Amino acid sequence: MSITVVGSIAYDTVTTPFGERDRMLGGAAVHFALAASFFEEVRIVGPVGDDFGEDDFDVMRHRGVDVSDVERIAGGRTFFWRGKYGWDLNSRETLDTQLGVFEGFQPKLSDASRESEVLFLANIQPDLQREVRAQLPDARFVALDSMNLWIEAARDSLMKAIRDCDCLILNDSELRQLTGRASIYAAAREVLTWGPRVIVAKQGEYGAALITGEGFFSLPAFPLEQVVDPTGAGDTFAGGFVGYIAAHSHEDISEDLLRQAMAHGTALASFNVEEFGTERIERLSGGDIVARVRQLREFTHFSDAPVPLRD
Amino acid sequence: MSITVVGSIAYDTVTTPFGERDRMLGGAAVHFALAASFFEEVRIVGPVGDDFGEDDFDVMRHRGVDVSDVERIAGGRTFFWRGKYGWDLNSRETLDTQLGVFEGFQPKLSDASRESEVLFLANIQPDLQREVRAQLPDARFVALDSMNLWIEAARDSLMKAIRDCDCLILNDSELRQLTGRASIYAAAREVLTWGPRVIVAKQGEYGAALITGEGFFSLPAFPLEQVVDPTGAGDTFAGGFVGYIAAHSHEDISEDLLRQAMAHGTALASFNVEEFGTERIERLSGGDIVARVRQLREFTHFSDAPVPLRD
Repeated sequence: MSITVVGSIAYDTVTTPFGERDRMLGGAAVHFALAASFFEEVRIVGPVGDDFGEDDFDVMRHRGVDVSDVERIAGGRTFFWRGKYGWDLNSRETLDTQLGVFEGFQPKLSDASRESEVLFLANIQPDLQREVRAQLPDARFVALDSMNLWIEAARDSLMKAIRDCDCLILNDSELRQLTGRASIYAAAREVLTWGPRVIVAKQGEYGAALITGEGFFSLPAFPLEQVVDPTGAGDTFAGGFVGYIAAHSHEDISEDLLRQAMAHGTALASFNVEEFGTERIERLSGGDIVARVRQLREFTHFSDAPVPLRD
Repeated sequence: MSITVVGSIAYDTVTTPFGERDRMLGGAAVHFALAASFFEEVRIVGPVGDDFGEDDFDVMRHRGVDVSDVERIAGGRTFFWRGKYGWDLNSRETLDTQLGVFEGFQPKLSDASRESEVLFLANIQPDLQREVRAQLPDARFVALDSMNLWIEAARDSLMKAIRDCDCLILNDSELRQLTGRASIYAAAREVLTWGPRVIVAKQGEYGAALITGEGFFSLPAFPLEQVVDPTGAGDTFAGGFVGYIAAHSHEDISEDLLRQAMAHGTALASFNVEEFGTERIERLSGGDIVARVRQLREFTHFSDAPVPLRD
């Protein structure tokens, strides 16, 4: 079943300890779409400006992403972000943000995009997320990402958007901020009472945790000798996670299925950060993903060996 | 086989969002010893002052810890630490440190303590760690903890101490600081070339990772609705980890054994943080530990379900 994603299509200028790239293809919806394209057909919705290149459309088309709902705004400029990462890649500074065509963006979904059974609302203004959500009332699985900015500036609308979703995917620090709870586990369990039945807490270099009514699951990030550019890791994770669910959307979305989806999201994110922007994902094969998921199982497995304990 | 631990025996005054406790029993060696006592006999080596109470000795004796090598320094005061945690318990401020009898401490090991086959060198001046290490030349498993202070102030001695150990247990930020490598995985693999064959990267609320020549393993912290006091979590983890290995020290220290040890350390640490100081561990039973290890397996397990991927 096809997946619709609504969010930013961007150019990123990024400096990390390993180099710099100027105006790379980026944006949450792009990173998500490329990752999810390994599992199902993806329809991407978002605006671009006159400056958006045909070769960047081709990167998406090459992965089978349907770009017919990408709206080109005449006279506009594509969303632009410039940032710089610190030496351990855990801190980053935003040096420039130019909203461009994103200012005043009104998502227009074609009939085909409205017929998707799976929807990902990437991090955009919560009012827009709700408008899009309302256009897919029958979607079987709707996941939403957000950020600290909207928790501060548009809390009420964000709460409503979260209530109408099946799954909230958020950084752990933002889960804390959203709920005022210090424990990520407690924070996630509180959000479960608002409406969603699945919470994913993204933990950056530490991986991600899954909290549902049935249980708790945690998976480390795939260990890498070198992370080159973390930009888009969270959205690539979301693409693998939601993509895997979409590929199984004829089944019940069981705890077991969600855990396998976590593993696929984690594997995809690990490839994303190995090179700048979309460079690595563009060359990725299904076999690469399968191999890394298998390694993740090996990295997290331990056997049961009871030992007599001294009470 | 018995375990010898050398390190601080302390009184801690701790403020967290959930309350305050004045002059609780604490110190790295104490937290370690109480945790390890569930697996093997533990001999604790460290100094206390006139102010150290008989009831605090009893807490250790009650868990079967041998306190005959605890040296009471006449006219001295027990090591004292006062600190305050922030609302999410991930930041803490040291408000007071009084070394007391720890200033000028020279570890004196009895014959019995020197005959232990397992040794834990808790976080103390690296010269002292090396002196103790030299007194147990035939130990089968020696683990060492340290901290940022010694990486800055006594780097050469610390490097020598690490070289002579089987296992380094360190916070992940300190592994970065020690090696200058941004990737924890790369940092650990570098330290493996120095001498140790086992590296444990402690990751606070995220759990811990194990890096050996054979592989990588990662385990999340046990999810808790509320953490009351994180003081001593790392040493309690180390006690469970090293204790489990000691209980199996007649076996090869295999990758599989180390992973099970990680699970037991993680379970013990999770109990430690549920209450102040040693309160929870004093009441703990072997059955509690076994149950939490079983839950940790459930929290990290996912099955293999290949999906056709779209190349």
